[in-house]
Amino acid sequence: MKSFRKELYFEVKKRRDFLNITPQVEEALAESGVREGLLLCNAMHITASVFINDDEAGLHQDFEAWLEGLAPEKPYSRYRHNGYEDNADAHLKRTVMGREVVVAVSGGKLDFGPWEQIFYGEFDGKRRKRVLVKIIGE
Amino acid sequence: MKSFRKELYFEVKKRRDFLNITPQVEEALAESGVREGLLLCNAMHITASVFINDDEAGLHQDFEAWLEGLAPEKPYSRYRHNGYEDNADAHLKRTVMGREVVVAVSGGKLDFGPWEQIFYGEFDGKRRKRVLVKIIGE
Amino acid sequence: MKSFRKELYFEVKKRRDFLNITPQVEEALAESGVREGLLLCNAMHITASVFINDDEAGLHQDFEAWLEGLAPEKPYSRYRHNGYEDNADAHLKRTVMGREVVVAVSGGKLDFGPWEQIFYGEFDGKRRKRVLVKIIGE
Repeated sequence: MKSFRKELYFEVKKRRDFLNITPQVEEALAESGVREGLLLCNAMHITASVFINDDEAGLHQDFEAWLEGLAPEKPYSRYRHNGYEDNADAHLKRTVMGREVVVAVSGGKLDFGPWEQIFYGEFDGKRRKRVLVKIIGE
Repeated sequence: MKSFRKELYFEVKKRRDFLNITPQVEEALAESGVREGLLLCNAMHITASVFINDDEAGLHQDFEAWLEGLAPEKPYSRYRHNGYEDNADAHLKRTVMGREVVVAVSGGKLDFGPWEQIFYGEFDGKRRKRVLVKIIGE
Repeated sequence: MKSFRKELYFEVKKRRDFLNITPQVEEALAESGVREGLLLCNAMHITASVFINDDEAGLHQDFEAWLEGLAPEKPYSRYRHNGYEDNADAHLKRTVMGREVVVAVSGGKLDFGPWEQIFYGEFDGKRRKRVLVKIIGE
């Protein structure tokens, strides 16, 4: 059994944004040499998400508006977590979007349906944060 | 290490429905010959879900009503994604329900608690769509 | 390839609570002897969750209030599932929080970012319930 580990770094200039990180994950998979196995990709921070959906700008605006409706950023005083911080909403938004994805590796490729792409969802940005890629297989 | 891959096909006649796909996943596991490992089961489409919950018709009606409350289908104009499409709500509903499940394989069986069953959640149906089963182990 | 399986038992005195189970999961990992691989940790009950977030009491109160807003416990009659039961809200809350986490194992440790901790989320407690830990690797 082979195993492979790589950290990816992202620094989003805004508080919230979605980045298509499929190319970086594919590069990690190529480096691993794994042909058949499972790939885990997870945010290492608890105010960020890794998720799979469509790379369509309108949809990303819908996600932003929808998440703000479900867990509004402001007023900061609405959350107990916001004593010394202002990012409680980011913890809740990341919970909706998910921490991680597990993707099948088949024939050395990400085994995806036609529109599946991997995104990094940042909900408390303006600083450097990490994503972990771990691959096991052979 | 063994690895096994199988696609399952589903065509739901309505826009939204939940199908218990545990028998098909168990069949794939039997075909794989894997006795100890991990099984990934994921929707290959971004408007559908694979999730684990209870096979109880009342609960499924509750899921339907609850998801419509969180991410209503109509009016279609409420979503930016719906320029050429009408399925933005399906992307959001699938996000709540989740893309995938990872299940332990122990003694050649799905290692489940008493009520766990695997469901395909369709949110933009009336066409043939795919679910991936990938199993690794030995 | 090594594989390892362990069940953890929890009995929460209240209907809802969050328990930091990272120490128990780390103990299972040490018992497994796995140095590189993947660890699955999932609730075996469909009204409970295993998730990763911050061990901060204010945030946990925010989660409680937020989940009650998204899927209120009462009136019980609002859910079809509640004919013979009263826990439909627990099924919905667990759906938001997630059934499982998959964690990378690197160098014999949980491969975590700085604040990641594993929680058991109970939404229908006052009875003994189980969490499964399955580890594969070498």
